[in-house]
Amino acid sequence: MYPNLLAKRAALTPNRVGLRFSGEDWTFDQMYQEATLFAQKLSSKGIQPGMRIAILASSNQELMFALHGCMQLGCELVMLNERLTEEELSYQLADSQADYLLVDSHEKRNLASANIISFKDVYAAIPTQLEIEKEWPRQRTITIMYTSGTTGRAKGVRQSLENHVMSATGSALNIGVQPNDCWLCNMPLFHISGFSILMRSVLYGMTVSLHSKFDAEKAVEEILTGTVTRMSIVAVSLERMITILEKKNLLFPNTFQSMIVGGGPVPLNYLERAIERNIPVLQSYGMTETSSQTTTLAAEDAIRKLGSAGKPLFFADVKIDGEEKIGEICIKGPHVTTGYVGNASSINPQVNGWLHTGDIGYLDEEGYLFVLDRRSDMIISGGENIYPAEIEQVLTKHSAVKEAGVTGRSDDTWGKVPVAFVVLKKDASIEELKEFVKDKLASYKQPVDYYIVEQLPRSASNKLLRRELLNTIKKSPNVD
Amino acid sequence: MYPNLLAKRAALTPNRVGLRFSGEDWTFDQMYQEATLFAQKLSSKGIQPGMRIAILASSNQELMFALHGCMQLGCELVMLNERLTEEELSYQLADSQADYLLVDSHEKRNLASANIISFKDVYAAIPTQLEIEKEWPRQRTITIMYTSGTTGRAKGVRQSLENHVMSATGSALNIGVQPNDCWLCNMPLFHISGFSILMRSVLYGMTVSLHSKFDAEKAVEEILTGTVTRMSIVAVSLERMITILEKKNLLFPNTFQSMIVGGGPVPLNYLERAIERNIPVLQSYGMTETSSQTTTLAAEDAIRKLGSAGKPLFFADVKIDGEEKIGEICIKGPHVTTGYVGNASSINPQVNGWLHTGDIGYLDEEGYLFVLDRRSDMIISGGENIYPAEIEQVLTKHSAVKEAGVTGRSDDTWGKVPVAFVVLKKDASIEELKEFVKDKLASYKQPVDYYIVEQLPRSASNKLLRRELLNTIKKSPNVD
Repeated sequence: MYPNLLAKRAALTPNRVGLRFSGEDWTFDQMYQEATLFAQKLSSKGIQPGMRIAILASSNQELMFALHGCMQLGCELVMLNERLTEEELSYQLADSQADYLLVDSHEKRNLASANIISFKDVYAAIPTQLEIEKEWPRQRTITIMYTSGTTGRAKGVRQSLENHVMSATGSALNIGVQPNDCWLCNMPLFHISGFSILMRSVLYGMTVSLHSKFDAEKAVEEILTGTVTRMSIVAVSLERMITILEKKNLLFPNTFQSMIVGGGPVPLNYLERAIERNIPVLQSYGMTETSSQTTTLAAEDAIRKLGSAGKPLFFADVKIDGEEKIGEICIKGPHVTTGYVGNASSINPQVNGWLHTGDIGYLDEEGYLFVLDRRSDMIISGGENIYPAEIEQVLTKHSAVKEAGVTGRSDDTWGKVPVAFVVLKKDASIEELKEFVKDKLASYKQPVDYYIVEQLPRSASNKLLRRELLNTIKKSPNVD
Repeated sequence: MYPNLLAKRAALTPNRVGLRFSGEDWTFDQMYQEATLFAQKLSSKGIQPGMRIAILASSNQELMFALHGCMQLGCELVMLNERLTEEELSYQLADSQADYLLVDSHEKRNLASANIISFKDVYAAIPTQLEIEKEWPRQRTITIMYTSGTTGRAKGVRQSLENHVMSATGSALNIGVQPNDCWLCNMPLFHISGFSILMRSVLYGMTVSLHSKFDAEKAVEEILTGTVTRMSIVAVSLERMITILEKKNLLFPNTFQSMIVGGGPVPLNYLERAIERNIPVLQSYGMTETSSQTTTLAAEDAIRKLGSAGKPLFFADVKIDGEEKIGEICIKGPHVTTGYVGNASSINPQVNGWLHTGDIGYLDEEGYLFVLDRRSDMIISGGENIYPAEIEQVLTKHSAVKEAGVTGRSDDTWGKVPVAFVVLKKDASIEELKEFVKDKLASYKQPVDYYIVEQLPRSASNKLLRRELLNTIKKSPNVD
């Protein structure tokens, strides 16, 4: 058993600020009161402990209290992604067999769910008496998140209390924790990158400064005031923040401790510029199935171990499956999901205790993990394996390239060939780019075609969606 | 399962300093090499995984490597207290059924143990090949410590890996942890106050600056250099450090974060002087059965909650048993021992998950714990309960009193009556002391006799041994 996280936190540090949103503060005690009231009202609407509640709502204080309220009632949370289509949402609702769907202002979406309750319905309810649990079983499912779908069909991943607690404590042992910590959260709460901040908050007694979405200007501005100590981000968003600092010729204050960057490696150019702006960048590797980070690279190793996602957190272990140095990344530890729900429930995510991620990488001689690619994104061309990330890394070294995405296109001769999608920050010709990669990549890795685009397709958590790249070209004779 | 703690730490931060002793540094990698070599040599001496190894040695780098070496081999450690008599040691050796006794220079002590091996014997052995475990079961017994014996007969307490890990992570979530942490350890390693620092070290990646014993001058000097961030101490030792700072008119540097004070409440006078010297005092309540702290008082609450030991750590819970506000302190959590060895092995330390400590205290309306006394030290006088600590607190407020200890003496009329033992820092008469307490304590709580003594009897961890007080008076007609 672990303590009821929010109840315990409210008892320990009732007056410490737990949530900051849109200029308003809530202490942990106030959050606990709000969550308890929400739970009491949910209860009067017929929702019972152990039920599975899907939530579809925007990131704000109401969603925070609703999430905590459902946890206070002992419900399992199915975290829905607002950006999904109605068809995708309906699939997840059916697959998870959610007992209720809780929504903020999405009532009008045409969703196949029997029991839809809006936040307004809950607020209007008369609270019932409710005995709040003092302890929660370690194996209780806290959240169910559907994997972002970069590989195959979305699967509903169970994240237990043990998963979340061990993830949060492992991260604390790695990057540290201090009583005045404040984590700026502008990652979506339905995604593990956002929800894990909420869990750390109650475990650490840490303020979450919640932003409804990523806004580089707003994030920079707040960090410059010196109140924020940590933040999670993806590389492309980091670059936007760096650019703002560069334009204003400003540095991050020393109070800012850790910029955890997930969703893929950070280009050298970003790292160098981040260092100049006093941003300690910690590259990490995590996923829904591991309730956030598995490995994290210390800021002081960022340049020396360029492209690495670091070493496993204390309670985590990583190995590479296969005979070769490069192979499938496998993960072990108390933060690894014990299973899926719905259609995927028969899949055992662990083989002898190891999660096979489908991602490709290697461990160097010092034990640092290098993630080469998502397996499904791997391009096999004439029998050679091509990892898009490698090509993207090369392209982003070109002074005119802001972002790059590479994917495979069907080809009669080679099976697949790599094609590149490039966002420019200043003028450059395709010929120039072709010339640039020539001596940096083996010929079979050189993209056969280049597309200059305005932006790259990304998931809600800003992860590059390589399989969507080809869809961004409306008309092209070569596209299959 | 958890990772093999030292092996994991050495893999994560091989070049970070793990141990500092007598002017020399060892990185975690070096410590792991030393420990592994020790384990290989132990193995060649016939010691096998799962065996129970008693250790009797002084605090230095050799003991550190020996302790880690035994853990690398998968042995259980019986932690012996050097200050015990041969009879007491022999009892613990027999009671714990230790397979081997490992000693440094204590070979000549007359101990009833079949297999005695000296460190020198181990060093001389040829190392054998040994497969070091990558993971350890959470329920493995890491250490067995005999309770300090302030209550009844010494019992061998099992401290599992889970106990130690949850204790260390709970403490980290409370007081914080940072990558440059260094904990000055001058508490004995055979005692949980010292051993818990060793466990935190490998979990946090933190330097232990080990001193062979408490030396106030040396501790102050080192802290003044700015390399130490945390320390554990008892009140009486803290006072000595404060006095040194006062004499030199110096403050602790801001790099010093936490002075954890255990073994009883800290008098107001000490707290006020500590604040003036920039020492953040965190009063705590812990015991062998809980693998270190259960509650800790934040430095900012030290004066406001004078006499309190604070709130439970995140994973711990405290309740008071009984109908009254004041009652027996009961403790729950993953840091609580699951049992004893030897003669006490039939005793279940937990009743419905709660450890009944035998200590008396209460929780105030904000949930802060106040420890009034060890139950066995409670004086029942004419049916009234008297808590020695309360009287001692009053006496130490007198400007001439440095330390005070109170115990009960048999009395034909009242059953027991309180008597006081006082160490003075300047001249004062017994009449003065009697006058001083008159309006501060109910008449039945006022000591009937006073003894001015040079020092108070204390355990190896400097805890006041009240049951020994009467023995300090060689000749007195009233002593029973």
